[in-house]
Amino acid sequence: MKRIYLDNAATTPIAPEVLEAMMPYLTEQFGNPSSPGQEGRIARLAVENARKKIAGLLHTSPSQLVFTSCGTEANNLALRGLIKAKKITRVISTRIEHSSVYNTLCDLTWQGQIEFVQLNVDREGRPDLKELESYLADGHGHTMVSLMHANNEIGTMIDLWEVGTICSRYKTFFHSDTVQTMGHFPMNLSEIPVDLMTMSAHKFHGPKGVGMLWMRKDLGLQVIQTGGSHENGMRAGTENVAGIVGMAKAFEMAMQYYQQDSHHIQQLSTLLQEGLEKLGAIRHGSKNDHRLYTVLNMGLPDIERSKHLLLELDIAGISVSAGSACNSGKTSKVMAAIHADQMINIRFSFSRYNQLPQINRVLDIIQYQLIGESITAENPLV
Amino acid sequence: MKRIYLDNAATTPIAPEVLEAMMPYLTEQFGNPSSPGQEGRIARLAVENARKKIAGLLHTSPSQLVFTSCGTEANNLALRGLIKAKKITRVISTRIEHSSVYNTLCDLTWQGQIEFVQLNVDREGRPDLKELESYLADGHGHTMVSLMHANNEIGTMIDLWEVGTICSRYKTFFHSDTVQTMGHFPMNLSEIPVDLMTMSAHKFHGPKGVGMLWMRKDLGLQVIQTGGSHENGMRAGTENVAGIVGMAKAFEMAMQYYQQDSHHIQQLSTLLQEGLEKLGAIRHGSKNDHRLYTVLNMGLPDIERSKHLLLELDIAGISVSAGSACNSGKTSKVMAAIHADQMINIRFSFSRYNQLPQINRVLDIIQYQLIGESITAENPLV
Repeated sequence: MKRIYLDNAATTPIAPEVLEAMMPYLTEQFGNPSSPGQEGRIARLAVENARKKIAGLLHTSPSQLVFTSCGTEANNLALRGLIKAKKITRVISTRIEHSSVYNTLCDLTWQGQIEFVQLNVDREGRPDLKELESYLADGHGHTMVSLMHANNEIGTMIDLWEVGTICSRYKTFFHSDTVQTMGHFPMNLSEIPVDLMTMSAHKFHGPKGVGMLWMRKDLGLQVIQTGGSHENGMRAGTENVAGIVGMAKAFEMAMQYYQQDSHHIQQLSTLLQEGLEKLGAIRHGSKNDHRLYTVLNMGLPDIERSKHLLLELDIAGISVSAGSACNSGKTSKVMAAIHADQMINIRFSFSRYNQLPQINRVLDIIQYQLIGESITAENPLV
Repeated sequence: MKRIYLDNAATTPIAPEVLEAMMPYLTEQFGNPSSPGQEGRIARLAVENARKKIAGLLHTSPSQLVFTSCGTEANNLALRGLIKAKKITRVISTRIEHSSVYNTLCDLTWQGQIEFVQLNVDREGRPDLKELESYLADGHGHTMVSLMHANNEIGTMIDLWEVGTICSRYKTFFHSDTVQTMGHFPMNLSEIPVDLMTMSAHKFHGPKGVGMLWMRKDLGLQVIQTGGSHENGMRAGTENVAGIVGMAKAFEMAMQYYQQDSHHIQQLSTLLQEGLEKLGAIRHGSKNDHRLYTVLNMGLPDIERSKHLLLELDIAGISVSAGSACNSGKTSKVMAAIHADQMINIRFSFSRYNQLPQINRVLDIIQYQLIGESITAENPLV
């Protein structure tokens, strides 16, 4: 039986159409975009067309996109690049950010470069925006704010407009780690009041090894990876041409199929949530609509039969996770922050390729593990 | 007619066998190596097997390899990571290093972190090692040396043993940018007295978007890209699994076919060199064997008929370059340093896929452009 993959917040399979778009650049169109010959020009065109395509879909200018090797690099460039360029001495964020933000801010703190202010988050994972405003109002000189758009473990989202408007009021730079939302929501970057946003191709059926930083015009970031004048002088290193082409194709498809994909995924998620609630589970994260439809984090009581559920699901052919892949094996800061670390928590994360029978099977298996009974007698388990 | 690609120092086509090795990881084996499920374990195994394979071929331990997104990132990590960790205040290098080293050292100088000492280089592109020794002997506290193994524009090589031995004598760290030589020579890293070396997959028929840093044990580099604990805590970011697998396969093939490939390429290079010398060209770089067999940089007198030779070759279906792709469009520091910037210089760089008839055709076309005659009447040109 084919495995059931519900760990799409960790990574997604490359869409066949995306691989097809990449193939010429993995075979005959192998040029270095910086080379003067025809192979080079074809590669350069591919990179710039990818940039234009993504920029168009985001309603922004191609010159505002910097291709990177992953979301982590994009977040590093956003934070380190802005902090250095603008002599930022205080960063306001939370302890539930992705490790590429949180650990970067810790690193800069240890080095004595910044003060890392951590906003309180409530039990739904929402940062305290009143507290944010009171920090900003204190008149401290060089501050920036970094808040993730959607939490990668529990899916709780901030309102970029709301936070951006507060930041604008206090003339404070605002970075948002949008790795979990770029490709999952349409965005008009000409309107959203954010200065820096990031993308990772493999979160929306693009390849691993490629990401992107979007920046507001004239931010003048300090470059962190120096060398050749690639990426308009913002990021040295020969471009991953096939990866960039793949990211653009994946992003195009994500926007093209957004309505149907999000509707389909929401249905599956609701079904799984309702089924698990019947088994005594509770949903973590935001109780209202401010949440990422691709992520469903459910908490089960920490009893004997639920202890090894993740392992048992894996053996039964179902991939889910306990939280962030980038933090695997460690205690989750996020679950501790929302006071859910005493439960057995499972993150189910969906993609357009998941189907209803998969959800039914997952429910069956969990029910069997927890209660020892299958819902349907004709469906033998493991 | 199929184009003739002689710009392999800029980038190489992916070998079909390499793409074949990558394909499973671009399709069904799409897991995140940090995920707990089966897809994740398969991806983790692929990454670690690639690491073991490369380490074995280099006679080193897998734990000493850090996978990066390119050679430029590897050089940045080597330099920035060591300078920060060891509180290096002086770096001895040259002005003919690749931009990923040279511009990084300039950047660190502008930031007031280091003094950048530039050794003299002679007309063959060899750094002055007597001068190096006199700098090291002056007892300045925290120094490191960074000298590229083979110059990417003219192919002149240093002797890693010779330089490494000098550095060892003065207990000085030694980094060598080996992007042009890794995959082109067998290396035994358990013996060579170097501390840090770098690799870029697309220079030896691997994919773009993946590179590697090799480091001596217990160097304790400072991490420059922070986040998750990937790469043993040395480089955060989801691994480019397919790219890493491709790099390992490409490196394996490069070592497997080293004898025959290097012999074949040397023959083509000698033939081209001799043919061009008959047309009045001179070879730049080392006059002895300390040079990279894949690179042949020839200087032609700057006369009317040679002025647009690069363009004309391109139109005739031949890709060569004027120098480093990472510096394209700019005046070459390297050619200025060896006092060759008043000539028309062409870098021909070879791979195992070049063939004798291609070399003959290149000679014909250049002869036609310079003298207006074809060598063989039965071979009509452009």
